[in-house]
Amino acid sequence: MAPKTVSIVGSGNWGSAIAKIVGNNVQQRNDVFSTIINMYMYEEMVDGKKLTEIVNMQHENIKYLPGVKLPENVIAVPDILEATTNADILIFVLPHQFVQKICEQLKGKIKSSAIAVSLIKGFAINEKGIQLISHQISEILSIPCCVLSGANLAGEVANEQFCETTIGSKNEDTGELLRQLFETPYFRCAVVQDTDTVEVCGALKNVVAIGAGIVDGMGSGDNTKAAVQRLGLMEMIKFAEIFFPGSKTSTFFESCGIADLVATCHGGRNRLLGENVVKSDKTIHELEKEILKGQSFQGPLVAKEIYGMLKDKDMLSRFPLFVAIHLICDRKMDTKEFISCLRNHPEHM
Amino acid sequence: MAPKTVSIVGSGNWGSAIAKIVGNNVQQRNDVFSTIINMYMYEEMVDGKKLTEIVNMQHENIKYLPGVKLPENVIAVPDILEATTNADILIFVLPHQFVQKICEQLKGKIKSSAIAVSLIKGFAINEKGIQLISHQISEILSIPCCVLSGANLAGEVANEQFCETTIGSKNEDTGELLRQLFETPYFRCAVVQDTDTVEVCGALKNVVAIGAGIVDGMGSGDNTKAAVQRLGLMEMIKFAEIFFPGSKTSTFFESCGIADLVATCHGGRNRLLGENVVKSDKTIHELEKEILKGQSFQGPLVAKEIYGMLKDKDMLSRFPLFVAIHLICDRKMDTKEFISCLRNHPEHM
Ligand SMILES: NC(=O)c1ccc[n+]([C@@H]2O[C@H](COP(=O)([O-])OP(=O)(O)OC[C@H]3O[C@@H](n4cnc5c(N)ncnc54)[C@H](O)[C@@H]3O)[C@@H](O)[C@H]2O)c1
Ligand SMILES: NC(=O)c1ccc[n+]([C@@H]2O[C@H](COP(=O)([O-])OP(=O)(O)OC[C@H]3O[C@@H](n4cnc5c(N)ncnc54)[C@H](O)[C@@H]3O)[C@@H](O)[C@H]2O)c1
Repeated sequence: MAPKTVSIVGSGNWGSAIAKIVGNNVQQRNDVFSTIINMYMYEEMVDGKKLTEIVNMQHENIKYLPGVKLPENVIAVPDILEATTNADILIFVLPHQFVQKICEQLKGKIKSSAIAVSLIKGFAINEKGIQLISHQISEILSIPCCVLSGANLAGEVANEQFCETTIGSKNEDTGELLRQLFETPYFRCAVVQDTDTVEVCGALKNVVAIGAGIVDGMGSGDNTKAAVQRLGLMEMIKFAEIFFPGSKTSTFFESCGIADLVATCHGGRNRLLGENVVKSDKTIHELEKEILKGQSFQGPLVAKEIYGMLKDKDMLSRFPLFVAIHLICDRKMDTKEFISCLRNHPEHM
Repeated sequence: MAPKTVSIVGSGNWGSAIAKIVGNNVQQRNDVFSTIINMYMYEEMVDGKKLTEIVNMQHENIKYLPGVKLPENVIAVPDILEATTNADILIFVLPHQFVQKICEQLKGKIKSSAIAVSLIKGFAINEKGIQLISHQISEILSIPCCVLSGANLAGEVANEQFCETTIGSKNEDTGELLRQLFETPYFRCAVVQDTDTVEVCGALKNVVAIGAGIVDGMGSGDNTKAAVQRLGLMEMIKFAEIFFPGSKTSTFFESCGIADLVATCHGGRNRLLGENVVKSDKTIHELEKEILKGQSFQGPLVAKEIYGMLKDKDMLSRFPLFVAIHLICDRKMDTKEFISCLRNHPEHM
């Protein structure tokens, strides 16, 4: 078989970290993969120079992953079509809000035999309500889309600190091909077929993390925080069961499940948001300006959409933690009421 | 049915916190339980007075749970036989090393219809190797022994901070009776039949917590720590499957499982031990003197016994995390090698 050409679509913090891994891997496995990787980079000027040119000269993404050398076979390309035209494997690693526009540009312009893999956490939220990003990519491009998700903070992965991740692929051979593309001694990949659950975990954990932050902000102890994480996990499992039939409980034991949940509930932006929601009277929007310099927190967006979905289906009472987190973020519920929601959780009935 | 008489055997930090709960509950459910509770207290002199007398005068265990008022219907009794002679329900909440001696004193002297419930975390380690404490109690006293275990730091429970716990009872009616005895709005009890797994979790989580402390000590990030917790959980599940056949995976989703594991890997003594093992050259014994004023850490004892057990059965390679933690505690493995054990974990094969 001819070696597969890989393109990376996205080149922020996570895209650059993953470029380091796959750039090295394709060189070592050049029987399986072409050694040149195009990385689509949204062009920006940094210190009066084009970021793509800086990356291609210095082999470092000085804006999104400073201090980490990228392999020289990874080429930053500012034109999305040029970056992807030969690709057999498309790695999507953009913030989710850019996916639709990029996919529409790619539609009909990529190889029809290509496959995609999404490394994006979060849901697509559109007129259809909640949609998995991998489904969105697959639908627009008419190609299969796998997923990769785990307890993987980009900076730590770039520094080669040991971690695990989960690849979701319905097709076993594709799963194995992706494992060869992504796995390193410090980045261990488990492959499961239950792709939807892998992706659902990556979106929902941010909601639970706000809850963990809320009890941190209230000064509750370790017991309460552990209960929030457990009840949050139970709601994640129930949500997947109801809305993504066929979801397997075993997937929650993978890195995409408990590991990412625990990491996000102890570090991460959404936990910090929850803490600040308790400690201040500011709106989410004000906290975004203050903490994220205007970017948006994932958790509240997902919580809001879930709330709408559950309300429509008359299921609010089955997800008291998700519901309370949305209402608290929206300042429609007092943070003090959070604990009573947990007390009367259906898990305790 | 005549109201059941409850006795508490043990009155340290956890025994006193639980005395507050059950003391209040029996008053509210006096159709089910007798309202007077004897609490066996190992007699000690505190400021020249007997601790039992202080507790019975001041209704506070000023040594083991200062600042928390105990219900007046809980009576501290220094004589173990007097404390338990009428008991229908015996709550064991002693440090595990005292269980055998106390049970031998009680043998033949308690009601033959009594039931026990153990709140003790850890294994009994004797000539038979590892034995569950509930089995030890049941064997010596010839009565059934249930268990209660969860993410339950005594001080937080005593302060009525919300948490969950898990009751393991093979008999459903007994499980329900115990739920009535222990449950409060801030202490939610789930009942499962898989008692052995509930108890196994409470012992093994201390081993995993040492691992979490080791990577903390090495300055690894959140990804690595999440991987340690996940791989630790996988080894806990495997251990229960092999050595306690019938163990259910669902039990690990209860408070006794993931919740207690996560809480212990972020707070707690054993995590702290792991961190200090990396940051100093001291032996466990020296660290016990320094950190615990001579008491022993649970984790290294359990890790050592598990190691022996696995070695005998030629199973070391299936539990690389447990094995590495024992060898590191024993200073037979360099802490730097911990990560390579994780890298080649059978979960990744
Ligand atoms: N950062 C992490 O640690 C991490 C880890 C795992 C998963 N993820 C996920 O990976 C995805 C990407 O996250 P990230 O942290 O790399 O993002 P980032 O914030 O670092 O990167 C932003 C990227 O968006 C690009 N961009 C800006 N405007 C654009 C436009 N109009 N069109 C197209 N691209 C534009 C920028 O050039 C940059 O490459 C997210 O879904 C995130 O959840 C991130
Ligand atoms: N403390 C917690 O937060 C907590 C929470 C859950 C479970 N547990 C478990 O509960 C059990 C008891 O822990 P604890 O924290 O209450 O212990 P502790 O260290 O607070 O109490 C020590 C107790 O042992 C008694 N004692 C001392 N010498 C004795 C002797 N020779 N014979 C009999 N008793 C003697 C003391 O009087 C005291 O009551 C342990 O198995 C522990 O793992 C503790």
